Amino acid sequence: MNSKKVILTGDRPTGPLHIGHYVGSLRKRVALQHEYRQYVLIADMQALTDNAGNPKKVRDNVLEVALDYLAVGLDPLQNTIVIQSLVPELAELTMYYLNLVTLARLQRNPTVKDEMKQKGFANNVPAGFLTYPVSQAADITAFKTKYVPVGEDQLPMIEQTNEIVDKFNSLYGGEILLRCEPLLSDVTRLPGTDGQGKMGKSTDNAIFLKETQKSLREKVRMMYTDPLHIKASDPGHLEGNTVFDYLDAFDLDKIGLEEIKAHYRKGGLGDSKVKERLFSILDQELLPIRIKRQEFEKDLGEVTAMLKKGSEAAREVAGQTLSEVRKALLLDY
Amino acid sequence: MNSKKVILTGDRPTGPLHIGHYVGSLRKRVALQHEYRQYVLIADMQALTDNAGNPKKVRDNVLEVALDYLAVGLDPLQNTIVIQSLVPELAELTMYYLNLVTLARLQRNPTVKDEMKQKGFANNVPAGFLTYPVSQAADITAFKTKYVPVGEDQLPMIEQTNEIVDKFNSLYGGEILLRCEPLLSDVTRLPGTDGQGKMGKSTDNAIFLKETQKSLREKVRMMYTDPLHIKASDPGHLEGNTVFDYLDAFDLDKIGLEEIKAHYRKGGLGDSKVKERLFSILDQELLPIRIKRQEFEKDLGEVTAMLKKGSEAAREVAGQTLSEVRKALLLDY
Repeated sequence: MNSKKVILTGDRPTGPLHIGHYVGSLRKRVALQHEYRQYVLIADMQALTDNAGNPKKVRDNVLEVALDYLAVGLDPLQNTIVIQSLVPELAELTMYYLNLVTLARLQRNPTVKDEMKQKGFANNVPAGFLTYPVSQAADITAFKTKYVPVGEDQLPMIEQTNEIVDKFNSLYGGEILLRCEPLLSDVTRLPGTDGQGKMGKSTDNAIFLKETQKSLREKVRMMYTDPLHIKASDPGHLEGNTVFDYLDAFDLDKIGLEEIKAHYRKGGLGDSKVKERLFSILDQELLPIRIKRQEFEKDLGEVTAMLKKGSEAAREVAGQTLSEVRKALLLDY
Repeated sequence: MNSKKVILTGDRPTGPLHIGHYVGSLRKRVALQHEYRQYVLIADMQALTDNAGNPKKVRDNVLEVALDYLAVGLDPLQNTIVIQSLVPELAELTMYYLNLVTLARLQRNPTVKDEMKQKGFANNVPAGFLTYPVSQAADITAFKTKYVPVGEDQLPMIEQTNEIVDKFNSLYGGEILLRCEPLLSDVTRLPGTDGQGKMGKSTDNAIFLKETQKSLREKVRMMYTDPLHIKASDPGHLEGNTVFDYLDAFDLDKIGLEEIKAHYRKGGLGDSKVKERLFSILDQELLPIRIKRQEFEKDLGEVTAMLKKGSEAAREVAGQTLSEVRKALLLDY
């Protein structure tokens, strides 16, 4: 177990997870869990950086996210599932790393810049939000992480972390902190069911992993397709047609799918038929997840206990890193 | 003891303390130590915010500062003397408070702005330095501080802390954190021995509390006086004359001092005579401090043990505050 390379991954608990998370990262985590030592961080402290006014949302979703993890098959014996706020060593590491990063560097971070624009922050950005890449560097280095699964848009986070690692090691002498590498995900992001941007937890355009069969059917029925495809006989377009985006992500029968696409393009295939196919595929994928989730929901105490146990295990490893960091900083009293 | 109001005070350990600290704050702390529950913080984490490249300087001066405290008569039984980095609860509190303060607010802090100008920081200010007022708010609130002894120039720190307190209490409901008040110091700052600005640890214009008699004599001999007062018979000026600034701060014989001032102004009193008087007064003041310091220097292990004990006691109180804060943030798993 100790010789396994370490992966750090996780989510901000700001809502239950959706099928965008599933194709984007969860499926991959399940596939990687045997080969790697995987720390899966429920990043509640990070969620608070732009949800300081709504701690209840964060608290409630810690358990939602944990249930989603268990439901998709993340095994708590194979992974260390961690509540970030239960590992105070991460806060201490963050404080030390904040001295190694300039304000200008934080303001230059393209990921944070984009998020700030989205959220309408300017200089009124909470300091905790602006500095969260430093807190992420603490998360990553605390567990001696080698690989961080990310999308292209999160590469700046890896870069920032490695800058801190390099600066720390060069200032304090030696290979104290470990550089990390991205595990680039090749899956494109699923758009929202309304065809508007990406699937969001708050924007009511997401299909959640815990969706009931009934609400799944309704959400698929309401999905955005081709607005020019009014009658079934009209030729349809695939570009920007979310139903086909989803089929691309979930339909394993690629040959059948190509035939359907051709038919849709030519005209004569109604949206409702295509949506029926998508519903049936999604329902088949989500059914076992839904069932497993309901099992775990019966004993939330057990789930919380599992999270505490994971967090305790994480504290031990983070504590080891912290004591190396404190020693390097001559703070080992 | 529990009914005593709490004072938080302290120093960044970036050098041994000098007579500017003595007249500016140390004397007052000694006077207040019986009436108040006083936490005296050796702020090594804060010192690292702009000394990340020189942890040895910080580490070495933690003990220097502690020795100075003991030497001037701060009683570890009456005060809680604390090494900041040994209270990790402060880092956690800082993380939560960072979400309540905007970047714009931090950049508007007049004290930090001045310090940034002095240090030649602009946007390349370390994030830890820019955010240190938030870390100070953590220090102050952690110990349920009522009074913070400050000079006028540090009032913005109190204001920032109370803003965080108010925001926290209004967001999370109730009187969880305590507002603090300044204990304004009425003593003017001592200029450096070179007459250039304030006495600095690094600028070689300070008279340290641990100064030997010999070096004290030499430093007084070299002190800046009135450059126009060349011969003893010339009339002398008192304005900007550091020797008289120091006499104002230390000479208890105010009537005798007025006579000397008149004589100096009129002409006929040489600098060396005035300096002799200052040396003798300073030497008398520093002698018992020097002796006491040498006693404590004989057993540095004892001093470190005292610091650890104080820090442990501080952790208990800070831990209590942190658990109230975590409860308010719904992080009480």
